[in-house]
Amino acid sequence: MTFNGLSAFPITPITQDGIDERAFARLINRLTEAGVDSIGAEGSTGSYAYLSRQERARVAELAVKEAGTTPVLVSIGAIRLRDVLNHAEDAQKAGAQALLLPAMSYFPLRDEEVFSLYAAVSRAVSVPVIIYDAPGTTQFRFSDALVQRIAALPHIASIKVPSAFPTAQEAIARLHRLAEQSPASLTLGVSRDPTAAEGLRHGAKVWYSEWGGLFPKLARRLTDAALAGDHATIESVSATFKPFWEMSNRYGGSLRVIASAAALMGLAQEPCLPEPLQGVSAEDRAVLEELIRTHTPS
Amino acid sequence: MTFNGLSAFPITPITQDGIDERAFARLINRLTEAGVDSIGAEGSTGSYAYLSRQERARVAELAVKEAGTTPVLVSIGAIRLRDVLNHAEDAQKAGAQALLLPAMSYFPLRDEEVFSLYAAVSRAVSVPVIIYDAPGTTQFRFSDALVQRIAALPHIASIKVPSAFPTAQEAIARLHRLAEQSPASLTLGVSRDPTAAEGLRHGAKVWYSEWGGLFPKLARRLTDAALAGDHATIESVSATFKPFWEMSNRYGGSLRVIASAAALMGLAQEPCLPEPLQGVSAEDRAVLEELIRTHTPS
Repeated sequence: MTFNGLSAFPITPITQDGIDERAFARLINRLTEAGVDSIGAEGSTGSYAYLSRQERARVAELAVKEAGTTPVLVSIGAIRLRDVLNHAEDAQKAGAQALLLPAMSYFPLRDEEVFSLYAAVSRAVSVPVIIYDAPGTTQFRFSDALVQRIAALPHIASIKVPSAFPTAQEAIARLHRLAEQSPASLTLGVSRDPTAAEGLRHGAKVWYSEWGGLFPKLARRLTDAALAGDHATIESVSATFKPFWEMSNRYGGSLRVIASAAALMGLAQEPCLPEPLQGVSAEDRAVLEELIRTHTPS
Repeated sequence: MTFNGLSAFPITPITQDGIDERAFARLINRLTEAGVDSIGAEGSTGSYAYLSRQERARVAELAVKEAGTTPVLVSIGAIRLRDVLNHAEDAQKAGAQALLLPAMSYFPLRDEEVFSLYAAVSRAVSVPVIIYDAPGTTQFRFSDALVQRIAALPHIASIKVPSAFPTAQEAIARLHRLAEQSPASLTLGVSRDPTAAEGLRHGAKVWYSEWGGLFPKLARRLTDAALAGDHATIESVSATFKPFWEMSNRYGGSLRVIASAAALMGLAQEPCLPEPLQGVSAEDRAVLEELIRTHTPS
């Protein structure tokens, strides 16, 4: 597959009875209807880290089935290598077109350990692997040198860089360095929605988007505007996203806010997060409700 | 059970074939022979976070069986509440006398979520629960107020505080505040070996010790000296521990170094860590070998 444009990361709605397959299918359908370029099922926003092996295999199957011709990416992250390799096997069997691999850990990993993780996966798989750089959850920071060592392994096809870590400016400088150093086989991508458009204007070819999993039409417009350098549209679409991004920042990440918004839009039951995670406070829920009513994002 | 003195946390040796039960049993036997007050099986040092539900239940059973009359504590930590409750059930069935509960997470948890986690466990269990404060792996910091809310729940019996986090001085000040604020039902304990003796001299009653899982006799002497205020012995035993503690610091934690030392002492195979974790470098292995030969710690 080629990596480009908008890769949307939907939540995996979870109720007391388990995964809400109907709600999940509907979320996937909204993404294909909006014309996203790929779907990141079971990314961080899709709660991959909270699901059992069986649940992860099932969600991957469902995503591929509902996505039709749209390629599906699946995270294979786990604390232990044995589990990572099991998830890789399951995801490939389910028809995932690429695998997201974070340096997930309990004890934060060391460079050699991370390299050995990617090397073991590279030997075991037959589809492209995306380096999933997620320092907020893994506590691991990839050096440029380590990225290049990993990028030289077979099957390593893309990297998902947080677009504002540790600052927006440093992330942009890093993108420029990566563009210069990396082999042509490595497609640069950005995550973290508020500064992703900026990343697309500085060498990234893919936006791995969290809010794009709930508001795919808006994210589609922002992606196209960023890739075309259409500043007026970037500004206006960003203005619609902005209050959602700001609330996400206050909650230390998007998932809790997206889950609450999905429930308010009738796209998931409430609560729909794996416990002990909780949605937003009653006060913020009222703010979200008003935002959704007045902005009608989709 | 009462919480006091030395609680030793052994590694769980893991080979390509799975858990090395014989090596694990031998490690437990060394602890009871040294007269530790309790055994923390499957703590962070026992790699609980890397094991499947079946492996965790099996290790808990083995530990209880080999420990004889020495009480065994078992970590029930998991990213998802559903799994935490399953581990609690398994550990109690295995005969664990207390449960260690960390705020383990993928997305770092918020105060209300952590409280709901402890409340759900408190409702489900019949044995004492230890608040396992491990900011280095969980990214969560307990406020004094949150500790007191949790300490008021049924079954909450102890707290394991890192003795040097964020600094040794602040940890001591925190121990004094906790001693003042906490109900008599909450026994204060310290982890992080290099400053644990200092913690025992400032209100902590238990040392939850990582290196004590490998060198239980030394840790026994340090515990007794600290509780008795015997400064000369504290100094001399600490001097023996010091190079091991310093190497642990360089590796961002004790586990990798303890695992390599255990292999060098013939107490585990090499490698004995869950991949992708690795033992120390060849260079540090030589240093460790010399340290073990000259210091003959046990």
